[in-house]
Amino acid sequence: MARNEVAKAQWIKRVFPIVEWLPKYNVRYLSDDAVAAVIVTLMLIPQALAYALLAGVPAVVGLYASMLPMVLYTFFGSSTTLSVGPMAVVSLMTATIASQWAGQGSDEYMTVVIALAAMSGLMLTLMGLFRLGFLANFLSHPVIAGFISASALMIGASQLPHLLGVSSSGDTLFAMLTSLFYALPGTNGATLALGGASVLMLLAARRWMVSGLVALGFSNGIARFAARLAPILTVAVATLVTWVGQLESYGVEVVGAVASGLPSLVLPDLSMDRMQSLGVSALLISVVGFVEAMSVAQALGSKRRERVDPNQELVGLGVSNLGSAFSGGFPVTGSLSRSVVNHEAGAATPASGFMAALGVLVAILTLTPVIAHLPTTVLAAIIIVSIISLLDVHTFIRSWRYHRGDAVAMLVTFLATLWQGVEVGLVTGAALSLMLYLYRTSRPHYAVLGRMPGTEHFRNIERFDEVETDQSVIIVRIDESLYFANARFLEEKIDSLCAQVDNLKHLVLACQAINMIDASALDSLEEINQRLKESGIEFHLAEVKGPVMDRLKETDFLDHLGGRVHLSVYSAWEELHQGQANANSN
Amino acid sequence: MARNEVAKAQWIKRVFPIVEWLPKYNVRYLSDDAVAAVIVTLMLIPQALAYALLAGVPAVVGLYASMLPMVLYTFFGSSTTLSVGPMAVVSLMTATIASQWAGQGSDEYMTVVIALAAMSGLMLTLMGLFRLGFLANFLSHPVIAGFISASALMIGASQLPHLLGVSSSGDTLFAMLTSLFYALPGTNGATLALGGASVLMLLAARRWMVSGLVALGFSNGIARFAARLAPILTVAVATLVTWVGQLESYGVEVVGAVASGLPSLVLPDLSMDRMQSLGVSALLISVVGFVEAMSVAQALGSKRRERVDPNQELVGLGVSNLGSAFSGGFPVTGSLSRSVVNHEAGAATPASGFMAALGVLVAILTLTPVIAHLPTTVLAAIIIVSIISLLDVHTFIRSWRYHRGDAVAMLVTFLATLWQGVEVGLVTGAALSLMLYLYRTSRPHYAVLGRMPGTEHFRNIERFDEVETDQSVIIVRIDESLYFANARFLEEKIDSLCAQVDNLKHLVLACQAINMIDASALDSLEEINQRLKESGIEFHLAEVKGPVMDRLKETDFLDHLGGRVHLSVYSAWEELHQGQANANSN
Repeated sequence: MARNEVAKAQWIKRVFPIVEWLPKYNVRYLSDDAVAAVIVTLMLIPQALAYALLAGVPAVVGLYASMLPMVLYTFFGSSTTLSVGPMAVVSLMTATIASQWAGQGSDEYMTVVIALAAMSGLMLTLMGLFRLGFLANFLSHPVIAGFISASALMIGASQLPHLLGVSSSGDTLFAMLTSLFYALPGTNGATLALGGASVLMLLAARRWMVSGLVALGFSNGIARFAARLAPILTVAVATLVTWVGQLESYGVEVVGAVASGLPSLVLPDLSMDRMQSLGVSALLISVVGFVEAMSVAQALGSKRRERVDPNQELVGLGVSNLGSAFSGGFPVTGSLSRSVVNHEAGAATPASGFMAALGVLVAILTLTPVIAHLPTTVLAAIIIVSIISLLDVHTFIRSWRYHRGDAVAMLVTFLATLWQGVEVGLVTGAALSLMLYLYRTSRPHYAVLGRMPGTEHFRNIERFDEVETDQSVIIVRIDESLYFANARFLEEKIDSLCAQVDNLKHLVLACQAINMIDASALDSLEEINQRLKESGIEFHLAEVKGPVMDRLKETDFLDHLGGRVHLSVYSAWEELHQGQANANSN
Repeated sequence: MARNEVAKAQWIKRVFPIVEWLPKYNVRYLSDDAVAAVIVTLMLIPQALAYALLAGVPAVVGLYASMLPMVLYTFFGSSTTLSVGPMAVVSLMTATIASQWAGQGSDEYMTVVIALAAMSGLMLTLMGLFRLGFLANFLSHPVIAGFISASALMIGASQLPHLLGVSSSGDTLFAMLTSLFYALPGTNGATLALGGASVLMLLAARRWMVSGLVALGFSNGIARFAARLAPILTVAVATLVTWVGQLESYGVEVVGAVASGLPSLVLPDLSMDRMQSLGVSALLISVVGFVEAMSVAQALGSKRRERVDPNQELVGLGVSNLGSAFSGGFPVTGSLSRSVVNHEAGAATPASGFMAALGVLVAILTLTPVIAHLPTTVLAAIIIVSIISLLDVHTFIRSWRYHRGDAVAMLVTFLATLWQGVEVGLVTGAALSLMLYLYRTSRPHYAVLGRMPGTEHFRNIERFDEVETDQSVIIVRIDESLYFANARFLEEKIDSLCAQVDNLKHLVLACQAINMIDASALDSLEEINQRLKESGIEFHLAEVKGPVMDRLKETDFLDHLGGRVHLSVYSAWEELHQGQANANSN
């Protein structure tokens, strides 16, 4: 009974990490969390508005999509510092997918966006409950890097029309740029001037603000936080300029009047039809969001010596997305930039996220009249400057040097994403990296071994001329686990090795590199054993690992084995070579 | 120049294996091949007619689909004994797919069937030329076994209506049996009697004919060949009975009048639309056909000490399917039963296939009046008896004992095929076995090592209590190559190992089981190295394999490495443990 209760308590701690830290909460934590929350909120507000624009929904929805998710993540998330809310790539994916079903601005568009958030939330939660976090591993780093880089270019291209004050559209980079090209003559001078000035201001802040403030005598820490606030300063200045200068009358587009107050509760449309048509898309959004959030949470968790549980993160992100959907928002995930700031500002517990949500609440209740005059070109400027850091040429160069296959997977993902859109790009990349992996392991490295004279060591006869061999014994080492993708290779390789030698009596498979033998490979070994038997050749195994041997013992394979299982290649050689010598001398 | 010509000659031999054997052809080969060809032809005729029925096309098309393919395979195939032509599972797949596009008996149905053969031929040929034979490896043995077993049940169910003289339809086992159930009251007594008698005759021949003939004094070899001819004897007797007894007037369905003479040349419909709509289906037929043919060819090739080249087999089968398409036939592949007979009857060269094609030609030219009176119930009986051997319970039991995951993949493939049809079944099975493999390798076996006192050997501290450890040094061995699917696992595992120990100075990764490190895993190693550095822990590698080390040397990873690369775990231990001991004594 006591044991059951301990297990139950651990389960509760795992599913509700808040149980762990809340009882220990104190004033010191409170002040640390509050400071971090203020800074995160000031960063979040312009980002939330901008990413809402990117997702193709009204700017204020970005605030809705920030509040409830942060509150819920406080209760269900396993990372102390992850800041959940709107994020660039996920917002782009949302816009791309929803545009396939309805025009931006329509009710149907909003319905699709909310359904995507809800389905993504459900999927993530279920994946967490069923402990399927490992599924996210199937996106290799180069594929993610290629996808994010291409997304960054598309995000940038999607914001250019706002920066220029024209309207254009498109799902792929080519379509966007073509559409933009034809719209160029309609460029609005005032919009471009305001947007361009914002871009320059943001770039300047990024480049010189920290060193400038330090030169003025501020501490390094304060200078860095001030630099983080450049976007909200830019927004404030630009809004003031627009309002004072009456720029709206010069054609500068502003966010416009929005309903003040809390979002009303929304019931997402989760009809069977909707689920079927959006299923794959929601899954892709979920996986990308999870992969991004996990890498942020793990990187920060490791700095703080905290363990992040992938399955609990799935639940945390899933519940957050459900929260976003029910408050009429779009899919959300952990944001790299805000999480880093949260960590650096000294957030002590997940409560800082809760407090940042309160900050957003205040913004929703008080700032909507100001937000109405916020020019969209400034939001576009914020997005454009922020995506620069997403372009990842380094990973490509590195992969190219390290392994061409990975570099090709990255390049293909990048091009497929640009050329066919985010969904096709991601699926193509994932499929390609699987294929490359299987191709690699389907033709494993192998070596025919000979004995280094006078030692117990055996080496590749192609690399070492001096090794001792025996016409009647072939020793072959396969440097890969045996499974369905290379089972046939093994059969072929052994067939052709045996076909080359006339007087062969023994074939020894050196198994030191074999970590696993699956059912297909076991069939192949049976087949090889059978064929060798019919040709009068004994089939031996050597240096079989413990776990592999345990499994083999559960089958009747060892009963049929023509030869024997030897502890080491050397003992196999001693016995078979010796035996041969004796046979010759008889 | 000379070298170029040698390479060219080898290339010609590879692409046209006939160049190898034709110059050596002699009278002895001719007589061997002729004997085998006669026996194969007599087996082939009833099979070809029956499988045509299964594919949903007129029986005589089965003969068309046998002739040209066998001729072409003689020139392009790499197996001496593989007998190409109609085959049960491929015929079932053809029927299932074509039925989705048109009703059996319509012109459109025939167009689809011919297009499938042509596309499958093109795909196989191209896969061979681009050396993509390895793709077939991705179907694991349990998945193939599950698919074939389910197909066998569906083939049997699809033939029951013919056996009973009723008409019914359906793509899945459930649909077939439901349809059959409602058709049962219309059972034709004469048809059932004739079909039932044929089934009994075939089963009896299979069971007792060999031993019976041997008991009568015939040699074992002759008895076995006679048993192979049971189907054609059954066909002959049943046709005679039908003709003499005028059974057609009792409602026994017969094949009916067919155009005598050679098939006219058909130009397959390979329009863009057709290619797009049938692409995936044709690929699945190609892969199943190839996998089946390859396993037959390899098994027989190994018995004859002949090497079968998978890529050349692809070309051989591809050209054969193109031949079938141009003579108005359906997709074909190597047949297990006929190939074994061809081998056992002593076929010496691929010319026996050419001669069997001549046999079929004679049948087409002379037998059509007889075939017209052949009752379809007898063909159904032949199919039903032949599929018994396709049901593979043995593999399931074996997989269940050896590895549950493989057994589950087999069961899911089996059920998905029965429940959703051949295409969904095959794709589900292949995807599932990939997932299972990735899941398995994404959570590799690992061990924390300690030193066996007084030796240079290191063992799992959980299995060996007596091993020596050091609070400041953790040695961990991962028993799997490092790649994207387990890169994150590695990070997590090392994070949690380090979080457990307070005074940790060194972490040694023992790499003897690591055959490959891909770009994702390299990123993870960098990340681990960085995190450990920040925590003041040195990250060491030990026993890195040559090829893995070669790759690592091409990156800057080793320059950043906090610790060092050690030749062996022992030398790492000696240095780090010793260093620690010295530090303590200072």
